Amino acid sequence: MAKAEVSLEHLFRVFTKPENDDSTLAKIEKHLSDNVSDFLSQHVVTKKTSLEEIEKDFSDASIPSAPEFVSSHAETLLNKLVAHSVNTYSPTFIGHMTSALPYFHLPLSKLLVGLNQNLVKIETSKAFTPLERQTLGMMHKLIYGGEASFYAKYLHSARHSLGAFCSGGTIANITALWVARNKLMGPEGNFRGINVEGLVSAYKHYGVESLGVIASKRGHYSLGKAVDVLGIGRKNLLSLPSPSHILDPKEALEAGKAYQSQGNKLLAIVGIAGTTETGHVDPLSELADVAQELGCWFHVDAAWGGATLFSDTYRDKLKGIERADSVTIDAHKQMYVPMGAGMAIFKNPSDSNSVRHHAQYILREGSKDLGSTTLEGSRNGMAMMLYSSLHIFGRRGYQLLIDKSIELADRFAELIQRNDNFELVTKPTLSILTYRLLPPSLSELSSISSIQQAEINAQLDTLTVSVQKQQREAGKSFVSRTRIEVSQYHNAPITVFRVVLANPLTTEQDLNSILEEQLDFAKQHKIWQNLNLVCDSKIA
Amino acid sequence: MAKAEVSLEHLFRVFTKPENDDSTLAKIEKHLSDNVSDFLSQHVVTKKTSLEEIEKDFSDASIPSAPEFVSSHAETLLNKLVAHSVNTYSPTFIGHMTSALPYFHLPLSKLLVGLNQNLVKIETSKAFTPLERQTLGMMHKLIYGGEASFYAKYLHSARHSLGAFCSGGTIANITALWVARNKLMGPEGNFRGINVEGLVSAYKHYGVESLGVIASKRGHYSLGKAVDVLGIGRKNLLSLPSPSHILDPKEALEAGKAYQSQGNKLLAIVGIAGTTETGHVDPLSELADVAQELGCWFHVDAAWGGATLFSDTYRDKLKGIERADSVTIDAHKQMYVPMGAGMAIFKNPSDSNSVRHHAQYILREGSKDLGSTTLEGSRNGMAMMLYSSLHIFGRRGYQLLIDKSIELADRFAELIQRNDNFELVTKPTLSILTYRLLPPSLSELSSISSIQQAEINAQLDTLTVSVQKQQREAGKSFVSRTRIEVSQYHNAPITVFRVVLANPLTTEQDLNSILEEQLDFAKQHKIWQNLNLVCDSKIA
Repeated sequence: MAKAEVSLEHLFRVFTKPENDDSTLAKIEKHLSDNVSDFLSQHVVTKKTSLEEIEKDFSDASIPSAPEFVSSHAETLLNKLVAHSVNTYSPTFIGHMTSALPYFHLPLSKLLVGLNQNLVKIETSKAFTPLERQTLGMMHKLIYGGEASFYAKYLHSARHSLGAFCSGGTIANITALWVARNKLMGPEGNFRGINVEGLVSAYKHYGVESLGVIASKRGHYSLGKAVDVLGIGRKNLLSLPSPSHILDPKEALEAGKAYQSQGNKLLAIVGIAGTTETGHVDPLSELADVAQELGCWFHVDAAWGGATLFSDTYRDKLKGIERADSVTIDAHKQMYVPMGAGMAIFKNPSDSNSVRHHAQYILREGSKDLGSTTLEGSRNGMAMMLYSSLHIFGRRGYQLLIDKSIELADRFAELIQRNDNFELVTKPTLSILTYRLLPPSLSELSSISSIQQAEINAQLDTLTVSVQKQQREAGKSFVSRTRIEVSQYHNAPITVFRVVLANPLTTEQDLNSILEEQLDFAKQHKIWQNLNLVCDSKIA
Repeated sequence: MAKAEVSLEHLFRVFTKPENDDSTLAKIEKHLSDNVSDFLSQHVVTKKTSLEEIEKDFSDASIPSAPEFVSSHAETLLNKLVAHSVNTYSPTFIGHMTSALPYFHLPLSKLLVGLNQNLVKIETSKAFTPLERQTLGMMHKLIYGGEASFYAKYLHSARHSLGAFCSGGTIANITALWVARNKLMGPEGNFRGINVEGLVSAYKHYGVESLGVIASKRGHYSLGKAVDVLGIGRKNLLSLPSPSHILDPKEALEAGKAYQSQGNKLLAIVGIAGTTETGHVDPLSELADVAQELGCWFHVDAAWGGATLFSDTYRDKLKGIERADSVTIDAHKQMYVPMGAGMAIFKNPSDSNSVRHHAQYILREGSKDLGSTTLEGSRNGMAMMLYSSLHIFGRRGYQLLIDKSIELADRFAELIQRNDNFELVTKPTLSILTYRLLPPSLSELSSISSIQQAEINAQLDTLTVSVQKQQREAGKSFVSRTRIEVSQYHNAPITVFRVVLANPLTTEQDLNSILEEQLDFAKQHKIWQNLNLVCDSKIA
């Protein structure tokens, strides 16, 4: 490594002099600008490198003493970091919710860093604060469809907020339940509110044994984190079994009544619009009724599925979301914004006042600083990325993208169903589906005894894990895996491939290749070979 | 606005075709690359524009229907957003902790977005996970100075974590106290732990009336947010008065004993290494002793001051930090990393297991996924920015920058003290100081009766607020303001200018100009004129 001079002069140059055109970093940048996909194909090494091998390059906890030249360091990044990153732009990377991004985000990211605004307060963000408020308003209107007069009144009101921008869906879910908790147990008489007096005093004052939250078992793991952090406790997250992958309104109502009859109070029902694992959408309208009957907050976690609202074709799938008290949406998922653009949107512009806070040097009473009602403090100007995307795609542009993803998922489901070697485990509601390898000889698996099923499924689970890992390590394509309970196998959990179809550049041919590759790996696996031989006799 | 075609073909181009060299966005990018400061001086409008005026440009909550061309949208961004942003690169923007950034972060930000990794799990981050672990290890070693064998054992251990990367100091402080709370009230006998059973059951099981946190009144407002969110309640944040701006160890001990004698349990003492408002450092070693005596967690909020550890000259100011159970550091403050690089570092690699959580599709038992012990879920690869900065500056480079800031603050303090029209209110410990305008005729203000003082201080407060706002709106330079209690005025609060000297490009001449501008504004103000005339007689 080329060591630079230790002097203020050298450091000032690092601050004030841009890279030369022929520097390594400038070359990286140019390649990214010319063709991101090509840059990634060229620099991301697809051959298998074990994590342990990679860790060797990142094993020294000592901070180097002397400064290093930027170009020399850029070489290191290319060889050690980029080479062993994940090519999320690849159309065959369909295992998670991270996908290719539109080109304009590359220059915009430079603008974001060049401006380096801090949105906690207007003094370090100025126009970014009105922009963020407008962007939250646009998402609010997308969900709730308020009148122009509503937004004229609340969009820029210092005493109101239509939502909170944050780093992601987890913070959004925590923020929503924090607001709900503090509103439910606000100041009353001598009681100064749960934010001041704490949970124990609040439960005592309101005569409540415990607060609880109801969601289906498909709820995101951040809900567990939320009830942990908020002091409610994970045992009070009532995760109802959901063999059909959605929260049954009747069961939710019964569970809620039973819970409340024991001196507890239900804080919230969480409906999910696009479960992380299977993409299912809970029956939001019916759940809104249940929440109303039980007298609790209704939160919708639409981190993944919220963008479906752009589509006139499919927005009915989310019917009832407009009755939610709060909604989580991640723009870095189906809205193709870079990582770090989560939002909690609140129906009622006053609700977030339950978490309002002030300080002497910023967030002063009456200021429009956005940090007064957010869980995070200092934040960057990611809202600009979403604001730009909303303009550059427009509603109709987003509709085309959403429709394409959903239709491609349907098409993939057909391909799987038509293929004798695979079993479609959950059909896509949005653009997520799950499936697994199943030898043709086992096509009757769902109708045999549960003991035999369990035995065979255990083997298939091993096979699925093995094929998923092999495919990931081979580096050509990537699907993820999860473990879900399904009704066709007596609600016992099975391991499945999980596919998220979000990359607009993924083609049917890509999907065919992925199935072919999986089958190839399977055929080399003993379990597949044995099951194909043995099972006919077993079932017979 | 130029509307683009509504077709998948057009959208694919947005994903796959880079900007032309002569597009507006490409030109913006080139200007940023050539000279950020020049770009900002040219495009950020310095003349006064009221917030209400700016809000008019961001008042429509409707999402446009048709797609817009990127270049057309880029024009909008320039005219409406950039024009009314804050020039945080300006050497005379010394009011907050946001400053100019070194050049290499511009191309790196493009690499970050081009890679778009998600660090919640290895499957979407691969080498970024080891990199983040190493970076956390480097910061751990900077604070605690562990042996090589320690890092060899824990840096990449799936069952351990040396810290959590997060969006900023607020989340870091919440994370630290969350870990402390869950560790203190972990599983025991039949009790399954506070994370599972909730706060009420935990207090009951452990026979505790309330948990409490001690910090000085100068503590960051995020501490209040933390005790609110965690269910502890703001009244259990014992903010001890601190007229000398630091937490007095004796008073902390007494307050802690008194609190615990009432059936309460002290969760943590928070020492501050660089208070947000005045830059003071609490006596960390003594506070570590107090925490030990009271048997509680010791957290150090070094969001601002942590980087002082790079300086062999000044790191003694933070002596005792190595005894903290957890430390908050923001790399986007004195480490010149773009907004969004906070960290909570844990001394003991097992402590964060108290918040460990799993899911079926990621964060599986035994995985090295970093999301298992973080408050946030999906996160971007900001760790790369810090990793690069640590290499490109090195310890010695950072030392030069830190030393320069502290010395410039000392120099500014001298300038203020030598100037008859100003009063230095708090001397800099690190690179933050506070002062105000004080007419020469009032040089004896601190020795007159408190009633007279209060009357005059009220007028000076009005003057300070007015001058601060005028200067901000004039747009040439920016200092912030806050309100603090100071011993020289019977511990009554006064309003002061607050200055943060972090921009390495700020010169003594810049500081002189700022004082001159403030004095000019003051001289035009009635209060200044009246005080200069009236006060001689009053004091006499």
